[in-house]
Amino acid sequence: MAENIKLKVGVLISGNGSNLQSIIDACEDPNFPAELSIVISNKAEAYGLGRAKKANIKTKVIEHQNFQHRSDFEKNITKALINANVELVCLAGFMRILTDTFVYSWKDRLINVHPSLLPIFKGLNTHQRAIECGVKFSGCTIHFVSSSMDEGPIILQAAVPVHQNDTSKSLAERVLDAEHKLYPMAIRLFANKKIWIENDLVKFTNIEDHNEILINPNIKN
Amino acid sequence: MAENIKLKVGVLISGNGSNLQSIIDACEDPNFPAELSIVISNKAEAYGLGRAKKANIKTKVIEHQNFQHRSDFEKNITKALINANVELVCLAGFMRILTDTFVYSWKDRLINVHPSLLPIFKGLNTHQRAIECGVKFSGCTIHFVSSSMDEGPIILQAAVPVHQNDTSKSLAERVLDAEHKLYPMAIRLFANKKIWIENDLVKFTNIEDHNEILINPNIKN
Repeated sequence: MAENIKLKVGVLISGNGSNLQSIIDACEDPNFPAELSIVISNKAEAYGLGRAKKANIKTKVIEHQNFQHRSDFEKNITKALINANVELVCLAGFMRILTDTFVYSWKDRLINVHPSLLPIFKGLNTHQRAIECGVKFSGCTIHFVSSSMDEGPIILQAAVPVHQNDTSKSLAERVLDAEHKLYPMAIRLFANKKIWIENDLVKFTNIEDHNEILINPNIKN
Repeated sequence: MAENIKLKVGVLISGNGSNLQSIIDACEDPNFPAELSIVISNKAEAYGLGRAKKANIKTKVIEHQNFQHRSDFEKNITKALINANVELVCLAGFMRILTDTFVYSWKDRLINVHPSLLPIFKGLNTHQRAIECGVKFSGCTIHFVSSSMDEGPIILQAAVPVHQNDTSKSLAERVLDAEHKLYPMAIRLFANKKIWIENDLVKFTNIEDHNEILINPNIKN
């Protein structure tokens, strides 16, 4: 694939940026059909900014507290994304709620990762809530962003077992491993035009169905 | 394991009894630590009654419409279970809501299978709702029964992928395959005293943790 037809991706972060790192790593493969055009953080101290700089990716800090109105904050984000020719916006630990106006202006070109098997456990503290609920599986979801928080057509999900002795930290790590696999996969699907939205559901071309049954706990005797 | 120390199980059905069949099949293994003492149906025409008879298991029909009060219907069920020396009651497609009195009298000895990854999709039409929601995983849950419908400490769960072209029927079949694996596994755990309830969560002895990540759809390019 020629360099000049790679999908241009913008990533919005607020902190550590481990999902950003998984995207950076994926983009290092010359056959990956997307490239990072810009990383925007609403926090100047976000660790992920250093990850982007190290990979020679353009970064921009747009701090929300510098704007009286949320709409002005978001206009600046959109301006930076457009200046960088971004075709797909990826939220990766971006901790600001986006307005309907922003979401609509990036409709079908804005995706998010959430650390649960949506629609369950929307919002924060997903891992603690999963543990307290006693579910044997949690996971993560990549989805197109709609105007409601943690809603919108689901692209991919990964399921991971919850262990008996899990803490929210140990479960978060296991889910994060899955997120790091899932996000580049979703970007690749989008870039290769393998997915589209139909009646609010994501459809795929050329999928291979599989029938695995994953049981947890899986005890032999 | 000597025959005389096998756990005595009672199964309540209303219809086809495919989960009952999976338990019957499991009990045919001489090493399985449980045996079926009685199968009770609230419908005389339930196909599962024939499955039990074929396996030489005692059956009893207790039709709910013959009782003016739900409590009398349930008292008859409990009487039949006690007469059969039942130590664990398994609901397997039993389509009557049970009262708190019945549930309490079988507290921690009453388990159910539900065709979803509880706590999501409680109630009926789970597969259609999963498909319409766009989730990439569904599954089934074996849980101790508490007084709220489809609630109570989760024992085991199995996750299965939802396919793009699934109908509620095709998804039901895939989930049912998982149910048939899961139910005998839960009975074996209970019979072997490998599980107990602590703070409304099911705890296990000697579990082997696993860290599989199951992704759906899982597309290579």
